[in-house]
Order: sequence, then C-alpha cells, then structure tokens
Amino acid sequence: MTVLEQMGERAKKASRVLATAGGKKSEALTAIAKALRDEREKIKAANAEDIENGRKAGLRESLIDRLLLTDARIDGMAEGCEQVAALPDPIGETLSGRVLENGLEIRKVRVPMGVIGIIFEARPNVTADAAALCLKAGSAVILRGGKEAINSNKSIAEVMRRAVASAGLPEDSIQLVEDTSRQSSVEMMGLSEYLDVLIPRGGAGLIRAVVENSKVPVIETGVGNCHVYVDESGDPDMAANIIFNAKTSRPSVCNAIETVLVHKNAAEKALPLIKARLDEKSVEIHGCERTRAILGKCIIPATEDDWYTEYLDLKLAIRVVDSLEDAMEHIAKYSSGHSECIVTENYENARIFTSGVDSAAVYVNASTRFTDGGEFGLGAEIGISTQKLHARGPMGLNELTSMKFIINGNGQIR
Amino acid sequence: MTVLEQMGERAKKASRVLATAGGKKSEALTAIAKALRDEREKIKAANAEDIENGRKAGLRESLIDRLLLTDARIDGMAEGCEQVAALPDPIGETLSGRVLENGLEIRKVRVPMGVIGIIFEARPNVTADAAALCLKAGSAVILRGGKEAINSNKSIAEVMRRAVASAGLPEDSIQLVEDTSRQSSVEMMGLSEYLDVLIPRGGAGLIRAVVENSKVPVIETGVGNCHVYVDESGDPDMAANIIFNAKTSRPSVCNAIETVLVHKNAAEKALPLIKARLDEKSVEIHGCERTRAILGKCIIPATEDDWYTEYLDLKLAIRVVDSLEDAMEHIAKYSSGHSECIVTENYENARIFTSGVDSAAVYVNASTRFTDGGEFGLGAEIGISTQKLHARGPMGLNELTSMKFIINGNGQIR
Repeated sequence: MTVLEQMGERAKKASRVLATAGGKKSEALTAIAKALRDEREKIKAANAEDIENGRKAGLRESLIDRLLLTDARIDGMAEGCEQVAALPDPIGETLSGRVLENGLEIRKVRVPMGVIGIIFEARPNVTADAAALCLKAGSAVILRGGKEAINSNKSIAEVMRRAVASAGLPEDSIQLVEDTSRQSSVEMMGLSEYLDVLIPRGGAGLIRAVVENSKVPVIETGVGNCHVYVDESGDPDMAANIIFNAKTSRPSVCNAIETVLVHKNAAEKALPLIKARLDEKSVEIHGCERTRAILGKCIIPATEDDWYTEYLDLKLAIRVVDSLEDAMEHIAKYSSGHSECIVTENYENARIFTSGVDSAAVYVNASTRFTDGGEFGLGAEIGISTQKLHARGPMGLNELTSMKFIINGNGQIR
Repeated sequence: MTVLEQMGERAKKASRVLATAGGKKSEALTAIAKALRDEREKIKAANAEDIENGRKAGLRESLIDRLLLTDARIDGMAEGCEQVAALPDPIGETLSGRVLENGLEIRKVRVPMGVIGIIFEARPNVTADAAALCLKAGSAVILRGGKEAINSNKSIAEVMRRAVASAGLPEDSIQLVEDTSRQSSVEMMGLSEYLDVLIPRGGAGLIRAVVENSKVPVIETGVGNCHVYVDESGDPDMAANIIFNAKTSRPSVCNAIETVLVHKNAAEKALPLIKARLDEKSVEIHGCERTRAILGKCIIPATEDDWYTEYLDLKLAIRVVDSLEDAMEHIAKYSSGHSECIVTENYENARIFTSGVDSAAVYVNASTRFTDGGEFGLGAEIGISTQKLHARGPMGLNELTSMKFIINGNGQIR
C-alpha cells in the first residue's frame, strides 16, 4: 500500500464516524478555532519558513503576499471555522418522502459524501477553510496543497487534527499530503477506491489537469470568463456603473468580467461613458474595430484570443454586436459558463437572455460580482462550480453532501 | 474535425433549441411513439439482420434474446415514449428563490444538462428509452450502442429523428454513433468540449472502462452487489420470504441480492428456512464454515471472492456474523453501494443500520428488488446510480437535468 492509499483507508474509517457525529462536528470546529488562535505563533513560525524559501526561490511579490499568514489572516481562519460551526447541520435532512401504495415508507435523506479530496495551490488558509466545510458536511478530507506553503499547511493541519481529536472525533478526519511532488497529485487523481470526489482549487492549468486526468469524480471550479451585454435599451449610466464594478472592484477573482458586448445602437452613447469610468482605474481596453471607431485608435485591437481570455487583471475586451442573438451567440461560444449579465430595460430581452444563456449565474441589471456563496446566502463556500453535474455556481455545505434512500417496510416483496 | 466532433457540434446546436422547447418535446415524443408503431416492419427487418449476424457469430442464446425486437417489444418502446411524454416537464422548475437584502431577486431554476452521451451494450430498446428521457429532459443525446445491435439501432434512431423533425424540433436532438469500434467509444470519453455528461449502461467491464478513462463527467450506474442481513431479532419467515424474492424473482438485475448475512443467534433457526425456500428454485449456495455447519457439507465453501461477486444468477453467498456491527463492516467492505436490507424487529438496530449503511437504498424488512425508478414513483428511469455525486439510486428525469441561478436586479453593484 502506498502512503496515499493508507491515508485513503484511514480517511474512509474516519468518515464512517463523522457520518453520524451530529453536534460533535461543531464542537470540533469551535475547538479548531481556539487552537488556531492559541497556536498562532507556531503557525506564523512555520509560515516564516515558507516565506523565506519563497523569497529564495524568487517568487513574485503577489505570490508571497498570498502565502503570508498575518495575525489578521489567522483570526480570519478561526472566525471562518466558528461561522461554519454555527451553520445548520446539513446531514440527515429529509429531502422528500412518501408512503408507496404497498405501504413502504420511502425517504430521501441528505448524507455525507464520504471522503473529499482537495488539490489547491498557494494560499495556506485554504487548508483551514476547506477542512472546516468538509468536517461540518460530515466528510473526511485529504488536502494536497502547493509546495510553496507546505510548512504552513503542515502546521495548520497538525493544529486542526489535534483539536478534532480533543473533541472526540478521529484526527484522520483531516489529513494533509506531505509529498508535494507532481506524483502525489497524479496518484490522488487515481484514488477512486477511497475518494468520493476531488475538488481542484486554483488556476486554470491545475483545474484542466485534474479534469482531464482524474478517475475520481471531479467538481470543476473557478474559471470565470464573464460577460456584460449592454442591450439596445440598456441605461448607459447603469451599464457603465455595473461594468466598472464588475471589472475593477476585484479584478483577480473569477466573478469579475472580462468582456463587454454592446448593441450597435447603444454603442455610440454607452461606450464613451463606459470608457470614462474604466479610465478612473486605467483599465486597458482591447476593442473590436467598431469599438475603436467610436473610442479611438488608442484602443488596442482585440484578437480572437481576447474573447477567450480570463485576464484576471485591469484589462477588458469590448465588442460591438448587431443584436441580442449575436451577443448570446458570442457568450455561448467563448464563455466559461460562470456569470453573465444583460443591462436592459426591455422585458422580453431580459426573458430571452435569462432563459437562453447557459451559465451558472445569469443577471439582469446587476454586477456579476454577486456570484458568491456569502452573497447568495449559503453561509460559506468551497468554490464556484462551472460544471453542470452535481453542483453549479457557489458551492456551500449542501453541495458537499450526497443523499440516499431509506425505505421502511414490514415484509414487502416485489 | 472528426465525425464525433461534428456530431458534438450538431448536438450542442440542437440542445440550445431543446432548452426552451417546452411542450414541443412531448409532441415529438408522441410522434416518435406513432412512428415506431407505423414503421415496425422496417425496424423488425433491420433487427432480423442483427439476429442473423449474431447467430453467425455464435452469440449465446440469452444474448440473442436480448437483441430480439418482437412486436411486443416495439409496442413497449412506443408506450415508453408516451409515458415519458405524459410526465411533467422538469425544465424551468423553480427549486428555490428569495429576495436578498439589497433587492436582488435570486432564483435557482432547473435547466437541461445540454448534451448527454450514452454508451450501452446489446439491448436495442435502450436506444428509444434513453433518447425519450433525454429529449423530455431538454437535452440532446448522442447514443453509442453495441455492434451486435447496430442495424436495429440505426433503424430506430432514423425513425425517431424523422419524428422529432416532424414535430418541429431539430433531428440532431437524437444522434447515433454508427462506428461501433472500440475507438469510437474511447473518442466519446474524450469529447468534453461537447458532452456535459456520459452515462454507461451495461456490464461491470464497460462501466469500469468508462469511469477510468472518461474526461467527460460520468454517472456510474448499475453494479449491484446487494445484501440482506438477518438480525438476531429478525422474523425468520419474513427473512426467508424477502431473501427468496430478492434473489430469485429476477436474478439478472442489479437490485437482486448476492449475499445474505445472518446473526449467529438467528442462524440455527433461519438458515434451514432460507435454504428450503431457495431450494424451490435450486439456488446454489456458497456458505461460510458456520453456514455449512448448520446446512451441511453439501453447501459449497464460500471464498473471499464470493463476497465480492455479483452473480446475476441463481447463486447466493451466505455468511454467519457475530453482530450487527460485523454485518455492517462486511457491507462496507464488499458492497457496491446499491441496495441493502436488514430484517429485524429491533427498533434501535433498524436505526443504526439505516443511518450507518452507506448505500443508495437502505431497507428495513423489504426486498431490495424495489430499488427501481418506477417503484419509487419517478415515472421512468435511465439507470441506477451507484456513485455519490449528482445522483444516487434510481435516476429519473430530474437526475438528467442541471440548474442555474437567475438574478434580477435594478443596478446593484457590490
């Protein structure tokens, strides 16, 4: 048995205890929060090693910042655990139920997934956030983080494991893969005997690699090539306001927009207003020829590649389209299926757009930045699913669970 | 572009029409039912070719029987389409909805999956049954059947496609892969750009191959290593009756049982009763040593392999266990997670078994043969999922759909 298979076996065993652990899960989360605060110096010391190694390895300053664990960030992890502890337990919920004509009482109830694998990249706080959600959802978790954060991750996992044990639950409810070589990640994708689901959290490259190679069922998260379409009847000021917010409030996140589509009859009036707002934050615009005809040749000509690109930066592509249908055609072709918005005052166009656009979240007259577990009222989220199987959009506790049928009879045969 | 990629592109285009086709889907299904009946002679002629080829190739008689399309089976396919037509349309259902504090109206609505791929084996009626369910669920379907049934499948698909077109929907809503080489099936597993989900229907080998190799999300169906556990307090007559029904009423299906576990204190009384019933149909018993000590050395000694085997035949493994916990341990280790039953009169043991056994359907005092879409009231089923992601247990129309969020605002930004 490989190290990972052994971890899988231990996780499976722990998951059977967690499945019926009830209120003990919240006690464990409260204990974790306390332990994270109490042992912050130890965690910060481990993190300092990662930071030092990162600097030696010449990591970009933005990556160093994502690695860094400050007091505020450790408090944030602890608070996150407390918030998850306070959420209602999803396990055991009766989703539906009835009595069949033969007297069988049948109920569909929410049960844990079992063992959840998470492969993630640089940010060490994912260790605590993801483990807390999995624990509350009644599943054991095997975490495999990036090598840059290995010392921080080990320290956090150790603190959490001890706290879980102190609350009377198996410490193997939370396990961290210490081998951060590519091999361990590949092996994890083949661990279908032990893992019920694998969730990659990170950049497009990581997600693609997992989707293409995993034998374990995957939930695809995060890639967001999002659009705002300004309809002929759209209010130009509202459009500029929504576009400014959706592009610039946090350009590095998946619910930020990357391309704006403008109806040809709205372009003349709306484009200068949009540009004026974007100029406030020096957003670099890549425009189609018709956009450049209105905004000037200073606009970078957009190429086919631009329509596919998730800039995650202060850059935006703009295209003038002939009709609502053309806008929807563009979205169907280039979108990653995350979030799209139409700005319109036309009832029928709003209806056509919301029913016809096939993305996780479809907006009328609102910023795509709202696509978020917290904003949608899910309490906490493990990521935003861009696939159609199992979960779509922000994934909260319910999306980390499965269901089963329980049937009570008194001797029925078929 | 390969032939399959072209089919994928056409399916995607068709799926966008189907997504908002509403009542036209049922009209198309009614037209299909009529066409299947009207063109039965053509279908039977194509089927006769398959039967002849099958005999030449020396197919087993049981396989020939599965291939055969009689008038009754064609009527069955047509009636199946009419039944699906009569089911309520799952698409557009509001699953939840609320108004957020900022005034955003958010709704979670049921939407089609998009394009569904189905890989299946010998039975040609799957072509009609599966296509009908996918169509009603608003998705285009690409079917890839076995080579033995290719002429029948082509004929059925052609009839269906013409009927769909006559109802004003795209004929590419239903497509059949005509290449039945291994290569086409492998290529289908890589078609993630076009397929939203891939469902294998067939034997354990096919399912394993698809699960291990597909880059498209898979729903695993059908393998059923199911158990009945006779608890210390279980009524021996009820146990014998349930075991007889669950083993012998249709041994070749996935909800039939393969292993019986008996509490040591119930064994002495229950085992002879169980054997007496099984003898009526000459069921071959593979027993553990304690079983053989009670039933006699004529019982075949069970090996480790027996606990893992889905016989799909008039064979049954029997093991005497020391406790409820040991029974649950056995099930956790050997079960395929399909259906399990406890026969008991003890309230607490029923509770422990139903909450602790991690299978799609967990029964108290009833035959596992009830695990079926029709029996559960889903109207029709595409298979029985034994995985935990997306769908578990019998999959009806709802399990063939996805969801999205629609958010209506009036200028909200974050």
